Amino acid sequence: MKFFKNIKKSRSASDEIFYTQIKKMIGFTPKDLSIYKQAFTHTSLQLKDDKGHPLNFERLEYLGDAMLGSIVASYLYNEVPDANEGYLTQMRSKIVSREHLNELGKDLDLLQYLISRTSKSKIGNNIHGNLFEALVGAIYLDRGFNYCSKFINKKVLSIYVDIEKLEGKITSYKGLLIEWSQKNKRNVNFEVYEDTGNQNVKHFSVKLFVDKKVISKGRATSKKRAEEMAAKRAYYVFQSEIEMLL
Amino acid sequence: MKFFKNIKKSRSASDEIFYTQIKKMIGFTPKDLSIYKQAFTHTSLQLKDDKGHPLNFERLEYLGDAMLGSIVASYLYNEVPDANEGYLTQMRSKIVSREHLNELGKDLDLLQYLISRTSKSKIGNNIHGNLFEALVGAIYLDRGFNYCSKFINKKVLSIYVDIEKLEGKITSYKGLLIEWSQKNKRNVNFEVYEDTGNQNVKHFSVKLFVDKKVISKGRATSKKRAEEMAAKRAYYVFQSEIEMLL
Repeated sequence: MKFFKNIKKSRSASDEIFYTQIKKMIGFTPKDLSIYKQAFTHTSLQLKDDKGHPLNFERLEYLGDAMLGSIVASYLYNEVPDANEGYLTQMRSKIVSREHLNELGKDLDLLQYLISRTSKSKIGNNIHGNLFEALVGAIYLDRGFNYCSKFINKKVLSIYVDIEKLEGKITSYKGLLIEWSQKNKRNVNFEVYEDTGNQNVKHFSVKLFVDKKVISKGRATSKKRAEEMAAKRAYYVFQSEIEMLL
Repeated sequence: MKFFKNIKKSRSASDEIFYTQIKKMIGFTPKDLSIYKQAFTHTSLQLKDDKGHPLNFERLEYLGDAMLGSIVASYLYNEVPDANEGYLTQMRSKIVSREHLNELGKDLDLLQYLISRTSKSKIGNNIHGNLFEALVGAIYLDRGFNYCSKFINKKVLSIYVDIEKLEGKITSYKGLLIEWSQKNKRNVNFEVYEDTGNQNVKHFSVKLFVDKKVISKGRATSKKRAEEMAAKRAYYVFQSEIEMLL
């Protein structure tokens, strides 16, 4: 036992912080921290492992892209049991689109972990999505498919993905909520404040009030997105009343 | 116990045969046979389940396609540790190409299980690959990712996929083996016979002899493919000698 405790203790202070951050983000314990480090290592560092193989996030990004594709496919298969093949394919494309993956990477603020020789501001916007895919690849390698699926389902799909919205049935939860409040003489308010903390990317937090009572919250890299997130959560609270509007 | 035995016994005679065939093909026990039945149900039957959802292989094909993509990605990631993202993507495309999937479906003779209103001969060649994908989807749904991966690795990738050949390093194992035999004064012979059994698709079996001793066997839907399969297996027997030719 003491032996194992010593191994655990031997992690450096910066590794300890990284370990805690990753654990919090993925929702379970990382086993091999070096894989997650690789997921955030940029090619510009030109690192190699002890066998001479390139050590950066690109291969993990490839693996993560593939895992993401199958996990989203499985999610949609279960979530939309009456959808045909064409619909499922189309919905998956929307969820794993470059634009959407960049948003996910931004909202998880993955750029803060990137180690790079090139200046982060010069890397281009796709880095957010690439890091997201690399993180997914790292989780798969470290903990296997089921944990990887758990991460994507709990931390991504259930929060950020909205089938009704992707389908075009609901274009704005905020708009819908305001429409409902006017018809039902309720008072809806949004309180927005910058909440960047010690992160590199600007973040916004939103509190949504109905009749002066906090109903839900949202946090994202844009004000609009944070409001929509809070509005979507409030939508589920009043769903039965709101659905009468649809 | 008697209760469960009775349940087991209650499977019909045709189900019993199907169960045994599937079990042999996938290499482990199917749990929910109805999923595999769905994987071999053609749209032309226009069946629906008790919730009114279409009951045919199309949704499973979608799921299987996605699973196949991630399992092949994971296989290549491990198998070719020095390959970059571009190489891995290209190799994966070759393995999961329509043409290759059709070959896999043919070699597993999946068409024999298809239940269809349309005549099988009128369905077109892609049915082989589509059924293969649907089978993969069924295995995933029934037994989960790890069993699905086991099936693809053991029954497909290790037998039918050849990285050296896909890379273009070796274009013909038969040719290579004959070249080696001539240089080393060994006598290589192929014995080919039709071995269709009670299957719908014509099959060929091959025995490969070196100096009148059976070294390996192959079986496939074309003579050439069966010979290559046997030659590849023989290649691994004499690999160290043959590699001196490369």
